[in-house]
Amino acid sequence: MRFPLIPPIDEDSTAAARRRQQELTKPAGSLGELEELSVRLAGMTATPRPRLERKAVILMAADHGVTREGVSAYPAEVTPQMVLNILHGGAAVNVLARQAGARVMVVDVGVAADLPPVEGLLLRKVAYGTRNLAVEPAMIPAEAEAALEVGLAVVEAECERGLDLVATGEMGIGNTTASAAIVAAISGASVSQVTGRGTGLDDGGLQRKVALIEKALAMHNPDPQDAMDVLCKVGGLEIAGLAGVIIGAASRRVPVVLDGFISGAAALVAVGLVPQARPYLIAGHLSVEGGHRVIYDTLGLRPLLDLDLRLGEGSGAVLAFHLVEAAARTLDEMATFSEAGVSDKTP
Amino acid sequence: MRFPLIPPIDEDSTAAARRRQQELTKPAGSLGELEELSVRLAGMTATPRPRLERKAVILMAADHGVTREGVSAYPAEVTPQMVLNILHGGAAVNVLARQAGARVMVVDVGVAADLPPVEGLLLRKVAYGTRNLAVEPAMIPAEAEAALEVGLAVVEAECERGLDLVATGEMGIGNTTASAAIVAAISGASVSQVTGRGTGLDDGGLQRKVALIEKALAMHNPDPQDAMDVLCKVGGLEIAGLAGVIIGAASRRVPVVLDGFISGAAALVAVGLVPQARPYLIAGHLSVEGGHRVIYDTLGLRPLLDLDLRLGEGSGAVLAFHLVEAAARTLDEMATFSEAGVSDKTP
Repeated sequence: MRFPLIPPIDEDSTAAARRRQQELTKPAGSLGELEELSVRLAGMTATPRPRLERKAVILMAADHGVTREGVSAYPAEVTPQMVLNILHGGAAVNVLARQAGARVMVVDVGVAADLPPVEGLLLRKVAYGTRNLAVEPAMIPAEAEAALEVGLAVVEAECERGLDLVATGEMGIGNTTASAAIVAAISGASVSQVTGRGTGLDDGGLQRKVALIEKALAMHNPDPQDAMDVLCKVGGLEIAGLAGVIIGAASRRVPVVLDGFISGAAALVAVGLVPQARPYLIAGHLSVEGGHRVIYDTLGLRPLLDLDLRLGEGSGAVLAFHLVEAAARTLDEMATFSEAGVSDKTP
Repeated sequence: MRFPLIPPIDEDSTAAARRRQQELTKPAGSLGELEELSVRLAGMTATPRPRLERKAVILMAADHGVTREGVSAYPAEVTPQMVLNILHGGAAVNVLARQAGARVMVVDVGVAADLPPVEGLLLRKVAYGTRNLAVEPAMIPAEAEAALEVGLAVVEAECERGLDLVATGEMGIGNTTASAAIVAAISGASVSQVTGRGTGLDDGGLQRKVALIEKALAMHNPDPQDAMDVLCKVGGLEIAGLAGVIIGAASRRVPVVLDGFISGAAALVAVGLVPQARPYLIAGHLSVEGGHRVIYDTLGLRPLLDLDLRLGEGSGAVLAFHLVEAAARTLDEMATFSEAGVSDKTP
């Protein structure tokens, strides 16, 4: 499969932003992470003073054959129910996106039910969910590639509408199981280290989930160096779709704010497929899901928020939009020492 | 001095919010800290579904006699210069307040220069800065009480205009020295543990600052149980003003978002004066200034943000407004399981 080219970070804009941060009316470095982030945003967008006005969360929904093994606290029919709730504006991501001034794009890339043609829903179903990764590969390569293409096409269309900042979101009962398998396979961390309770498993459920993933990885033996192999064997359609969104956004110089554990697994896949995507990633928040920190360590990212969120949908990434926008706005809108007539540091 | 009565947290609204959080379309607890905060907001405001539409940052500016000892990286004339920069809209707090939809109220409670009557500036000067705490008490009781009254009156007027959420902000070269002295005196922590680099001291400057504060505390010997005694001996006019803001806001059931180290010192004073103010405090962010964590531990608060900020002005608190508002909005606007027709957890 061919992916779009991703340009390198723009060094002139990076340098210009770093210079400007030294001239703004504040002690140098006193805006901490916001300063670093503003410099990164300048490099990503190739703009010395980027403005992030047009924002979207792209939410990929799909089902997982592995839910037949009882690895989730919620039944699979919750996936289409929650997709409809999101389309009606009642989910957390809707509330947070309204607050942040972001649009919510919902994509059915693999829900195991026929969804009605509701306004705002992009019907791009590749399959009625994945196969059960506990007994066979979750996807054949053609399915994974089709889901990646959905992500690439959706983000490309959003860029045509105008897009300065994008968040990854997902809905899919069972997808923390697929994500934990991906993270263990790619990072080399143990399954028990990267597997969490998802939507709310008890201790016994968590033990069964770990055992199932260990068995599946032993059976499939995915090649850690081959992200497509990992994705097909233990991944998901929404994870493939989000990897496409990440690669497509990076190819258009649009910064990507990652949500939680599943988005992080998609980022590992995206960077495995196209390593040049990595500098365009922003870690929205640190989830309580155990393996999330492993993902950030592997990608070399520091999360903006740490609020014990574990909801998905893109909710934590959209919440982090405020901080990303604040980084860009302070860089752009603050006065410099000379503009304001403020004395700089004593010599 | 008499302070307004502060009502207790409303238990019915707290219970109603907690109940509603269980009914919203998400796994219980999956919004983490936002859920806890939403429940606290309900209790503070005595409203089961609070709306936080009218927001302000109250920024108290004042100077410190102790700057004559060379404890700051910036000269004292930066205080009036930065106040004017803020009034012209060029400081970080202005940019962040515009983004958050908050108004910025600037109060001259003790700047050591005559400020012009610029629109938006409240001239409430109690003195031209404090006395040098290295050689004498920073304030006489009448000055500290007058500054507290300024804070009470300013927040009262803001409440009359309409105020749902308030942030504390400050500007005052030298005020990390006064704050460190307050925190050491009240918390019992060592001076070296709670003293930081402020706007950017080098190692030698930091050592001199620690030695100066240790000597001042040994000389004044403030009573840790008597917040007014601590405030007078080693405090500041803006710190007294902010303590007044905190007590006044709490008396009107307005949640208070604390900014950095100086705001935290003001909160210690406020809670020392009127312990009932404590439940109305929200920790906006954790500063790099070393003693900030000691303040939060003493007050029993967990910060919403941890971004290595150390700017003051209320910048970190205003940035946290987005999260506080998100907590209230998700509680209020999300659909319940029954409204959305979504299946709850498997039994």
